[in-house]
Amino acid sequence: MLIHSASQLLTLAGGPQRGRDLGRLGLIEDGAVLVRGGRIEAVGPSAVLRAAYPHEETWDASGHVVMPGFVDPHTHLVWAGDRAQEFEWRTQGKTYQEIAAAGGGILATVRATRAASLEELLAQARQRAWTMLRHGTTTAEAKTGYGLEPATELRLLEAILALNAEGPLELIPTYLAAHDVPPEFRHDPQGYVDQICIEMLPEVRAWWQAHVPGRPLPFVDVFCERIAFDLAQSRQILERARALGFGLKIHADEFEALGGARLAAELGAVSADHLVKTPPEDIRALAASATVAVALPCTPFGLAQPEYTPARAILEAGGLLALASDLNPGTAWCESMPFVIALACRYLKLTPAEAIAAATINAAAAIGVADRLGSLEPGKQADLLVLEVADYRHLGYRFGTNPVKRVMKRGVWVVENAPSGA
Amino acid sequence: MLIHSASQLLTLAGGPQRGRDLGRLGLIEDGAVLVRGGRIEAVGPSAVLRAAYPHEETWDASGHVVMPGFVDPHTHLVWAGDRAQEFEWRTQGKTYQEIAAAGGGILATVRATRAASLEELLAQARQRAWTMLRHGTTTAEAKTGYGLEPATELRLLEAILALNAEGPLELIPTYLAAHDVPPEFRHDPQGYVDQICIEMLPEVRAWWQAHVPGRPLPFVDVFCERIAFDLAQSRQILERARALGFGLKIHADEFEALGGARLAAELGAVSADHLVKTPPEDIRALAASATVAVALPCTPFGLAQPEYTPARAILEAGGLLALASDLNPGTAWCESMPFVIALACRYLKLTPAEAIAAATINAAAAIGVADRLGSLEPGKQADLLVLEVADYRHLGYRFGTNPVKRVMKRGVWVVENAPSGA
Ligand SMILES: [Zn+2]
Ligand SMILES: [Zn+2]
Repeated sequence: MLIHSASQLLTLAGGPQRGRDLGRLGLIEDGAVLVRGGRIEAVGPSAVLRAAYPHEETWDASGHVVMPGFVDPHTHLVWAGDRAQEFEWRTQGKTYQEIAAAGGGILATVRATRAASLEELLAQARQRAWTMLRHGTTTAEAKTGYGLEPATELRLLEAILALNAEGPLELIPTYLAAHDVPPEFRHDPQGYVDQICIEMLPEVRAWWQAHVPGRPLPFVDVFCERIAFDLAQSRQILERARALGFGLKIHADEFEALGGARLAAELGAVSADHLVKTPPEDIRALAASATVAVALPCTPFGLAQPEYTPARAILEAGGLLALASDLNPGTAWCESMPFVIALACRYLKLTPAEAIAAATINAAAAIGVADRLGSLEPGKQADLLVLEVADYRHLGYRFGTNPVKRVMKRGVWVVENAPSGA
Repeated sequence: MLIHSASQLLTLAGGPQRGRDLGRLGLIEDGAVLVRGGRIEAVGPSAVLRAAYPHEETWDASGHVVMPGFVDPHTHLVWAGDRAQEFEWRTQGKTYQEIAAAGGGILATVRATRAASLEELLAQARQRAWTMLRHGTTTAEAKTGYGLEPATELRLLEAILALNAEGPLELIPTYLAAHDVPPEFRHDPQGYVDQICIEMLPEVRAWWQAHVPGRPLPFVDVFCERIAFDLAQSRQILERARALGFGLKIHADEFEALGGARLAAELGAVSADHLVKTPPEDIRALAASATVAVALPCTPFGLAQPEYTPARAILEAGGLLALASDLNPGTAWCESMPFVIALACRYLKLTPAEAIAAATINAAAAIGVADRLGSLEPGKQADLLVLEVADYRHLGYRFGTNPVKRVMKRGVWVVENAPSGA
């Protein structure tokens, strides 16, 4: 199929975009893209492609932007229940301690998730997956982390695999048993860290190789904060995971700077995420590495906190910057990458072009799939969006609504949203 | 039709909600609403209404919130063109002065709007009207103000009337010739104020009475800021409008406190809007009056400014608080009242219940229609929403996506959004 006459075709060609190089959209006016067998076969001006492929089935994108599907490289997609009551408490001024005492917080979601069957988990996550897809996310990372015990963590991994197999949203799994200290280990956090290293990681590896042989292992992630795991514990888990062959991720510097970003760079993690409090020397360490810095602006927004990831400092240091939703039931129930971009343009001081690159090709790099996703280039998977608008800058400029008109995954139209005019 | 089994039916019954009284949802669990001839005929528990009306056609709202349609009491719905380029400039750090010198700002929209035909204006505004409707707004105020000359201001009024006649979105018009000083009067702002008072207001009144006899006059509004019209000019325009029989509104204290809120209270304006910089004594004057304070949180959000309307101070003073989108092409292109509520819960420190009341019954009061809109009570117009969710607190809690499943206007289903599960 030849999608042609796009007012702007954004290719994002040329690989991940480092530092001040961020924002190369590869914009082709009156552009076209040839899709065959689920892959991109050619990209260029409409006149050139229409002449080269005169017998191809066509789809007219006049008046619309055509661009790669969003990649959302940090989500906690699979959980049970909600925390709407806790949100109301927060708006009433209840403190973190009061909410925790009333049974709120992450452990509320852990309780609900442990009690949920695989089918219940799938039913709830499937709704969010479709909402993501309708907002233009064609691939997302998805973390475990609301089990905090071997069986439930494995059930969450199973749910991610099952949802990915269902499609059309493609999921890249991450094992986050180290999301929080489970209630059973409240007085012995190190005991849980040891259990993760000694039992859980080897078991997950064996389970994975038995169930999905040949498929790359999930990433292993740690929540490195004073309220969760300290730097030594994070190092212990990540070094063990690396030795077992897992790729690494880290939640670092969301509330306090513990050195997690520097650790990620040292260990060759694929990404370090949050990075609100990261000090200049850790930004430099990160920027000198291949680790992608993933900003999650929905989290400070969700909590109405004024501090965001110092994205411009990361870019000026030469870092690789990506954007993600952090979709989760506590701080950021938001499936929309267009909204993430609207926040990034305001609070991270990115231009629309920079934010788009951070949400596509760089986001793909943050989950190790930039070789096959995140841009419209020959040979890549045909994951693309048609926007309702003719100018990419409406991403960022407009907010709170969905600019995505159509979504193609692996060469198949999977979403058609209602037109804006009826 | 009997809409029944709503997990939560929010009636918002009992009229506008003043001060700390804000947030009375009139919540009925397993609730039902009987709609006949475009009006609400009865509201109550499902068991009671099903027994009372056994032969009525039914619609099952199990698992969903049913509530009044949102009323958006401050929008600049009708304009031509966009300011996406200007938004990009802002993200690049260009100053207000640089953008104005490059042809940006409100006068860019005035140029485009003056050049647009009625049909072009309708085509562009119609898209936004449908987007509003799909996000649950069933009635909106709509202002002129991108003409700044008699003929174009009148064309904008015509466009509002024509869109309202088309439906299904109901529009309440406001005449805002005093939105800015037009380029022709750059060196003589007072000359334009005099033109408004001497020529334009009487002409609009005569035109209105000739074209839509019997229909209440539009509101007259003034942008009272140092960058537009000072307090004396605002008073001159509003007193003249009042003498001619127009209802009054004012844009006050968005950037600087000039006394506009106090003026609104003194003159009996139906609302005073923005109110970011309003000092305590003006909040007290407003709270002691019948004038509704309309907060527009999309505007500081759109500009990434940290200061919002001091909503809690307004409530503690006993004021009537409403929420609106301020939909406009410069600072806040946002059609979504659910997003306004998400902002209000975070930056105005409203609870979800308070924000919902401010976006329905109090919003109706801000445009003088609380007697027939804004709540589900017998005799009122059947404008209602079915939300995708079972708990009203998901409004506010979740953000960036659309929780509205179905919209009924005057007893007719006019929107059915895609389900969240497919
Ligand atoms: Zn996270
Ligand atoms: Zn306004």
